[in-house]
Amino acid sequence: MAVLQRIPNTTHVYEGSFTKSEFTSIDAQRLIDIHSQSPSVRVKPEYLYNSAQSPSLSNSQSFDLEESSSSPFRESNSTRDSLLSTASEKIVLMTGAEQSSVVQPLLTDLYQISMAYAYWKSNKHQEMATFDLYFRKNPFGGEYTLFAGLEECLKFIRDYKFHPTDIEYLRASLPAYLEAEFFDYLSKLNMNDIKVYAVPEGTVVFPRLPLLRVEGPVLKTQLLETTLLTLVNYASLVATNAARFRSAIGADKTLLEFGLRRAQGPDGGLSASKYCYLGGFDGTSNVLAGKLYGIPIRGTHAHAYVNSYECLEDLSERDLADRITGERRPFTDLCVQYLNELGPILKILPEETHKGELAAFISYAIAFPTNFLALVDTYDVLKSGLPNFLAVARALHECSYQAVGLRLDSGDLAYLSMEVREKFHTVAANFNLPYMGHFNIVASNDINEDTLVSLEKQGHSIDSFGIGTHLVTCQRQPALGCVYKLVELASSPRIKISQAIEKVTIPGRKNLYRLYGHDGKALCDVLTSIDEPQPQAGIRMLSRHPFLEQKRAYVTPSAVRNLYVLYWADGEIKAPLPTLKEVRAYAREQIDQLRKDHIRDLNPTPYKVSVTDSLFQFMHKLWMKSVPIGELD
Amino acid sequence: MAVLQRIPNTTHVYEGSFTKSEFTSIDAQRLIDIHSQSPSVRVKPEYLYNSAQSPSLSNSQSFDLEESSSSPFRESNSTRDSLLSTASEKIVLMTGAEQSSVVQPLLTDLYQISMAYAYWKSNKHQEMATFDLYFRKNPFGGEYTLFAGLEECLKFIRDYKFHPTDIEYLRASLPAYLEAEFFDYLSKLNMNDIKVYAVPEGTVVFPRLPLLRVEGPVLKTQLLETTLLTLVNYASLVATNAARFRSAIGADKTLLEFGLRRAQGPDGGLSASKYCYLGGFDGTSNVLAGKLYGIPIRGTHAHAYVNSYECLEDLSERDLADRITGERRPFTDLCVQYLNELGPILKILPEETHKGELAAFISYAIAFPTNFLALVDTYDVLKSGLPNFLAVARALHECSYQAVGLRLDSGDLAYLSMEVREKFHTVAANFNLPYMGHFNIVASNDINEDTLVSLEKQGHSIDSFGIGTHLVTCQRQPALGCVYKLVELASSPRIKISQAIEKVTIPGRKNLYRLYGHDGKALCDVLTSIDEPQPQAGIRMLSRHPFLEQKRAYVTPSAVRNLYVLYWADGEIKAPLPTLKEVRAYAREQIDQLRKDHIRDLNPTPYKVSVTDSLFQFMHKLWMKSVPIGELD
Repeated sequence: MAVLQRIPNTTHVYEGSFTKSEFTSIDAQRLIDIHSQSPSVRVKPEYLYNSAQSPSLSNSQSFDLEESSSSPFRESNSTRDSLLSTASEKIVLMTGAEQSSVVQPLLTDLYQISMAYAYWKSNKHQEMATFDLYFRKNPFGGEYTLFAGLEECLKFIRDYKFHPTDIEYLRASLPAYLEAEFFDYLSKLNMNDIKVYAVPEGTVVFPRLPLLRVEGPVLKTQLLETTLLTLVNYASLVATNAARFRSAIGADKTLLEFGLRRAQGPDGGLSASKYCYLGGFDGTSNVLAGKLYGIPIRGTHAHAYVNSYECLEDLSERDLADRITGERRPFTDLCVQYLNELGPILKILPEETHKGELAAFISYAIAFPTNFLALVDTYDVLKSGLPNFLAVARALHECSYQAVGLRLDSGDLAYLSMEVREKFHTVAANFNLPYMGHFNIVASNDINEDTLVSLEKQGHSIDSFGIGTHLVTCQRQPALGCVYKLVELASSPRIKISQAIEKVTIPGRKNLYRLYGHDGKALCDVLTSIDEPQPQAGIRMLSRHPFLEQKRAYVTPSAVRNLYVLYWADGEIKAPLPTLKEVRAYAREQIDQLRKDHIRDLNPTPYKVSVTDSLFQFMHKLWMKSVPIGELD
Repeated sequence: MAVLQRIPNTTHVYEGSFTKSEFTSIDAQRLIDIHSQSPSVRVKPEYLYNSAQSPSLSNSQSFDLEESSSSPFRESNSTRDSLLSTASEKIVLMTGAEQSSVVQPLLTDLYQISMAYAYWKSNKHQEMATFDLYFRKNPFGGEYTLFAGLEECLKFIRDYKFHPTDIEYLRASLPAYLEAEFFDYLSKLNMNDIKVYAVPEGTVVFPRLPLLRVEGPVLKTQLLETTLLTLVNYASLVATNAARFRSAIGADKTLLEFGLRRAQGPDGGLSASKYCYLGGFDGTSNVLAGKLYGIPIRGTHAHAYVNSYECLEDLSERDLADRITGERRPFTDLCVQYLNELGPILKILPEETHKGELAAFISYAIAFPTNFLALVDTYDVLKSGLPNFLAVARALHECSYQAVGLRLDSGDLAYLSMEVREKFHTVAANFNLPYMGHFNIVASNDINEDTLVSLEKQGHSIDSFGIGTHLVTCQRQPALGCVYKLVELASSPRIKISQAIEKVTIPGRKNLYRLYGHDGKALCDVLTSIDEPQPQAGIRMLSRHPFLEQKRAYVTPSAVRNLYVLYWADGEIKAPLPTLKEVRAYAREQIDQLRKDHIRDLNPTPYKVSVTDSLFQFMHKLWMKSVPIGELD
């Protein structure tokens, strides 16, 4: 199968599979660019292919929408995973210096700049601050979230630098009485003296967990707010959405992301492809995502292609060479002959199938004889598309090829897929070609999570789903409400109170631990003050709801995991960053470590996020102190 | 006021206001880059400011979240529009060659490439095709849509070119038996022999109107599909959303887009800022959008800034110089003194206001004495934030400055704004400072279209709205379903039929006219076959529903407008492209030309999109011909 290959800068070529431990932090700094969210494209990437591993048939797999797993003509690849390990996984590396992107210091809210000035003006800008980045509610009515976007955050922090034109623009936009020294300060600013602790990308997370803990001078940590939120919010939202689609349909089906045309902007489409793959999808139609992130790409033809033929006379090329003998065969005549044979088998009128559609299928099969997958709903699935497809598939067999399958893009997908499967079996029996019973059925019409749940309940015969609009725009909830709150300044904890209790922050620098039960499932998460000892396996502790004093429980974990990793300090990335594919595998493990009732579709059980008793007491004391007492009159 | 200034490339400097007629097509080709949707930023724009028009106070206006309209201390700018014409409107020009972007040929679905090969393989790729780009349903339960994204489409077409690394990637991803000649063909491909007719950007449009009519070789026109859809779909959706927010609140309020942190990806945030402005918003918090598109930028401070002060002793700078005399005043002491005076006036306990909040306000006022706008809900709006704000505002007055106003970010906005306004009037009367009754009230907590409608019904005293999540992610409907359909090939009309009637296409090349009644309001739109004469003012004609034969009406227009403009032909942009600000004004005119019942909030009347009788007959004949007849048994 394909060899994973990375080419950092110009000097080293790595080959073979990587494990996390093989990365150094220097590699990590380079490799972070691989999955860059907003890549520019007119860069000059150091771009290489391993030509030794590109035989034609292996190559062609990356082009299949889906492959039949029983092909006698191709290299045997019986599992979905192996099918997806193809040429398109070769990873293209771009170094930071070569990239340009909209992700840069000015991609922020104006008030960050005005606060920066006010801090600077009052000489408060060097005070050490800690900010927590977290959300308050899981999306989509669920009880878990996949954390994504970290690599992009680290890249943004690493490359943070105002451009001279940025400074010019700010100087012209802000009041003229701002001191020149402030703009000088901004122009030289970098993020080398801040620290970022974070949970690893792909971790299952919950409301109120600080996903990032950002420490450093208050001016700098404040300046990062908007961009970090932008990078985490949508990435985590769409990755979670993808994971939910995956949970709804099970591990054995193929899920393909087809959302580019309906995404919220071009880069929204690119981010969607990347993070849907992270969340458990198998491939994308987005070619640029394939090139930039090594995601398998898939796709065949559209209705327009079918419409482009009116009749068989439109065919300029009518023949096809036999795959094995090379003998030229009268392919179009064979198709017509088999269509007529199919009439009584399928109980349809061969003369009533649309001959423009048949011509389109024939020309497509001539172009891609190893990858024939036909869109069959342009005129009528059962009366036209299906018989035309089967006629071409049977003729392909006559030329020593195997068709792949068909795609349904309208109508009742459960019913049609079962009807089509039944016809596949009938034809397989009639022609004595068992593989035809297992042709792939791809479905792709406005599918959302509810559709998948409903299809699973009704029964269906679909093998692959192409999912677009509702997946990438997150129809059910198009935004995740991550926030970024000051929790400590100049060694003094800060609380942000609110009349809305869920908006109150948990003050102070904190650590974050996941406690596991004896069955290996996650029991609850615990936030501790930075100076408290780590919870210990086998030691009973009191965990408390952060806001409600009556809600508390003793817990004796079988295992404890510190969820934080120090990712950025001393101006460099401190921890290895896994590949996108590794993050994808980790995310799946993470979901598997949750109890089933946390991830079920209907009324899932909330997962417990708690604080230690000491943090509870501390927080509530500060809270009381901050609320003014009114006077009744 | 600010002088509109554009600097194409390096040679010309234009000053003064432009009208559409002043543009040549060459200018247009350059100016298209101004509003580029996915700008890269590490470009080297030719960047200039008109220093003659930047006195300090005029400059400071671009920084105001909102200005009091009655300031005696500043240049008088009594209308919202003039307030927004500031330094930030100077337009930065970037030429195509300097830009890189994710908008490029590989940002497409794989099946476009596979169809391109199949067309090429069967020597059909040069056949002349026409595609229509349209949507089937207005978004948000409304009856109109603003068309946006055209300029981006034209720029994409103009710059269409596969990069050598794109070709390498495709070669490695597609089956190995594809001919080298095909990849050579792709690598040389440009869009110089296609034509694009379109309705102007900012036009009000309706379901089934072809917004773009793309003509040219089928391989090329097909290759454009996904990217054109990506560029039009979200742009039109979010512009329409913004227009609906504007309609809900009326023309006299200020609407500010604050959505970057919750947008679907970084570029989603940038597109949102641009197209919300097009749709009728007044400004954005997004600094990069200000720099790239000349949109006014706004913003003051966050809760974190308030939390960064614990008490008055945290203030390192306690004084402020008088604006007029320059005399150093004990500003902090003045604030405390006025807070005590405000106790009985506001019926609050001065000692119970949060002194950290007061310190934050004081330091912010010292940093921005001309632009003091305070976020007042960190602790308690009425018991703490409001008295602290008023104390600082009164002290600012003592130093010859005027405060701007306050921002509410939680709670019952209608109630709080009216309470706050009442206190403003009380204080204005007590201090005999009438302008204090008119301090700006900005509101910004999770506002959506329904909130605005409800606020209008309840009554409120809000002057400006900062709107984020629901605006930019289009909560009510996060995607517009634009499609791109083949309607003619090799001079033969094509129809795409479907079991879902609304998915049937209107075949053939068509023209598009808007018919107006004697009151100047739009009556209906009519599609004609390309060879039919243009409908004439004063001439009665039969207009028909495209699908339902019983629905028809005679119409005698008072005026007729051909909605199509030829924008791209002979490898160049053929028609002038207005500035973003001009498109914004045009969009507002367009909405004003609709009857009120088409744009009302509740059960709006659908606008009629019709076809001529001749097109109706032609279409239905082709439709019948394409549907197979079944056999009952």
